[in-house]
Amino acid sequence: MGYYPEKVERLLERLVKFPGIGPKSAERIVNYILGEDEDSILSLAEEIVSLKKEVQLCQRCFNLSDTGLCSICSDEKRDGILCVVEEVKDLILIEKTGFRGIYHVLGGRISPLDRIFPSHLKIPQLTERLKRERIDEVIIATNPTPEGENTAVYISEILRKMGVKHSRLAYGLPVGAEIEYVDVQTLKKSIEGRKTL
Amino acid sequence: MGYYPEKVERLLERLVKFPGIGPKSAERIVNYILGEDEDSILSLAEEIVSLKKEVQLCQRCFNLSDTGLCSICSDEKRDGILCVVEEVKDLILIEKTGFRGIYHVLGGRISPLDRIFPSHLKIPQLTERLKRERIDEVIIATNPTPEGENTAVYISEILRKMGVKHSRLAYGLPVGAEIEYVDVQTLKKSIEGRKTL
Repeated sequence: MGYYPEKVERLLERLVKFPGIGPKSAERIVNYILGEDEDSILSLAEEIVSLKKEVQLCQRCFNLSDTGLCSICSDEKRDGILCVVEEVKDLILIEKTGFRGIYHVLGGRISPLDRIFPSHLKIPQLTERLKRERIDEVIIATNPTPEGENTAVYISEILRKMGVKHSRLAYGLPVGAEIEYVDVQTLKKSIEGRKTL
Repeated sequence: MGYYPEKVERLLERLVKFPGIGPKSAERIVNYILGEDEDSILSLAEEIVSLKKEVQLCQRCFNLSDTGLCSICSDEKRDGILCVVEEVKDLILIEKTGFRGIYHVLGGRISPLDRIFPSHLKIPQLTERLKRERIDEVIIATNPTPEGENTAVYISEILRKMGVKHSRLAYGLPVGAEIEYVDVQTLKKSIEGRKTL
């Protein structure tokens, strides 16, 4: 609105386009940049540029990588269980559980309303991999949202036709939750999926 | 923790040091950077560098400026009422009210616990300005916090000795608030400061 010097205004306009940054956060970030020493900010700018220039997607599983194959695909100790996820951040979370298989990152979920169809995702690449690689089982780990479910159903159909063993993440109570606060659909799924003790 | 490629990890570590950015926001920002086109990110990096290199503090009032004197100090139509604020963001808010005087940005508030003393702020520069410039009145617009109050009292003492007319922002009910939700101290101040109708 012209209250700040032009350079500040321009950066503020850029920053508010970032996910999760509103006008107040943008102002705080600009103040932080102005308060830091110059070397530190120059190196930050360099890191942003080098991230953009050098980080790419793994040729095989579409995880983030700074070489052709990501660190997981280059790891020969991984077993033949392939976990299909929507985004890299889901892969990271599954890695944190101690899962030692491999992955395939779809880059999103099927969502006709947003005009995202199977061909926009890495689904053709997944079927190619399944023909080429020895995969023991595919775990479909798309999100438990309507779009994630649709995507899971779509992929499951392909895998059934190809005769590939596959499974879906279990639904149920979140660990540490109180039943009182769990929604009815989740509770219903957790009853359907009950385990005999 | 080594789940992401090194360049991603390094930028994540930098981003979480920014005010208001946690690990999840940092991941979303990195994803956004990776998804944007390269030219856009290169120009963002340039804007950050040029902000840092070219935006300075106004020589007179310590507002942000890309020239020696800020746009407010260069504006000859401003009147002789000087508003003392803690930070540039306070100045911006006061500008938005339509205030047409000039400013003096302290760069913080006196806070002995954080080892911030009057000499760390632009208080000596304020007394210098008052000797040199023709100021009709000083409005002390530090925050209504204990530190802001202390700073106001300290400055008021100096101005009293110099014989400069000065005032403090009014306390009272926030516009649009319901009395039920206003704290007792604010309500007390708004009774003390009541206006005869």
